[in-house]
Amino acid sequence: MKKKEKALVVLSGGQDSTTCLLWARKEYEEVFAVSFDYNQRHRKELECAKAICGEFHVSHKILDLTQLNELAPNSLTRADIKVDEDAPEQGTPNTYVEGRNMLFLTYAAVYAKGLGIRDIITGVSQSDFSGYPDCRNVFIKSLNTTLNLAMEYEFEIITPLMWLDKEETWEMADRLGGLEIVRDRTLTCYNGIMGEGCGHCPACKLRRNGYLRYMERKQNG
Amino acid sequence: MKKKEKALVVLSGGQDSTTCLLWARKEYEEVFAVSFDYNQRHRKELECAKAICGEFHVSHKILDLTQLNELAPNSLTRADIKVDEDAPEQGTPNTYVEGRNMLFLTYAAVYAKGLGIRDIITGVSQSDFSGYPDCRNVFIKSLNTTLNLAMEYEFEIITPLMWLDKEETWEMADRLGGLEIVRDRTLTCYNGIMGEGCGHCPACKLRRNGYLRYMERKQNG
Repeated sequence: MKKKEKALVVLSGGQDSTTCLLWARKEYEEVFAVSFDYNQRHRKELECAKAICGEFHVSHKILDLTQLNELAPNSLTRADIKVDEDAPEQGTPNTYVEGRNMLFLTYAAVYAKGLGIRDIITGVSQSDFSGYPDCRNVFIKSLNTTLNLAMEYEFEIITPLMWLDKEETWEMADRLGGLEIVRDRTLTCYNGIMGEGCGHCPACKLRRNGYLRYMERKQNG
Repeated sequence: MKKKEKALVVLSGGQDSTTCLLWARKEYEEVFAVSFDYNQRHRKELECAKAICGEFHVSHKILDLTQLNELAPNSLTRADIKVDEDAPEQGTPNTYVEGRNMLFLTYAAVYAKGLGIRDIITGVSQSDFSGYPDCRNVFIKSLNTTLNLAMEYEFEIITPLMWLDKEETWEMADRLGGLEIVRDRTLTCYNGIMGEGCGHCPACKLRRNGYLRYMERKQNG
């Protein structure tokens, strides 16, 4: 199949967005990446993003969004707020950063248009959305329309992981030849621990359970 | 009529948003304002916004969005790009900053939710939209839906000037008792000249023609 021309990947340096980067490299001739510095607790993920882009010769831009922290205090950006170990029964978890995906994707779109890119790839997933409203498909669809109206441009927000759970995301990385790179060189842990992570935060639990399930299935053929 | 509780006004310090601030003070018990520093050529407008808020005892926040300039070069933020004197026949004028209103309103929404505010007031106008796609009503409606989905919150974006032309906006300021303050203490000119402005840029022409038409109508009773 002929590759498409070019795309911009919103890259956090975690499992999901790195898997999307692997996917984009198969689908597009030219891949760009953009990351956001919002004073996240797990800032090492920016180093991961940088290293991975370096290895793949992907043009990578990091944008400063630190003022987001000033507006919307939460446990991912404030050292004085402890990360919830489990999702609350009601409402959003305290790791939720208000408006985060909307701002990320809007900045990404402004950047993409400047590069003449229409396809914007993001690793959001409704299957594993953990109570974050801005990971839902309905939000992404609505945002896509709004962006196109805002800039009179035909953006296409592409979400390869929208309906995959973490087990299937590991499977995708494996099929794309990137299981090791995703496992060993990305950061998902809210407490900033590479690879295996702290094991206690919700992001680690989700990532590890998916990995174990996929490995079990793979070994059983 | 009983006033509503509270609202956030997106305040540039120009004619339109200042008129919206006057309007909001009549409609709401408590009014907050937010402005954006994006390295605009007419940065004095931020001083205007600050002074007006000071006079009206309105709580005012200025957010740093200077990275927008890095992403989307245009004549309003780059000293090396000259402002178009007239709107181009096709496409957007070079004073158009990609994604500007979308980013402003998204940040405003994050800030508003933190303050427990649902009503966000912006001075965009489709009647005088000057070719800016992000001033159109269809964009604002779509953005409202997207914001509500992004943050699971019932924002209401209110646009008192949407269907008014500049003449009617002057009339509104006058009825609200603010003709002088808008005329003498706001900044609309792309070249950063207070009050009467440079007279040549599209923003000055629009503002002045509206003022003259309104004054003529008023004098003729």
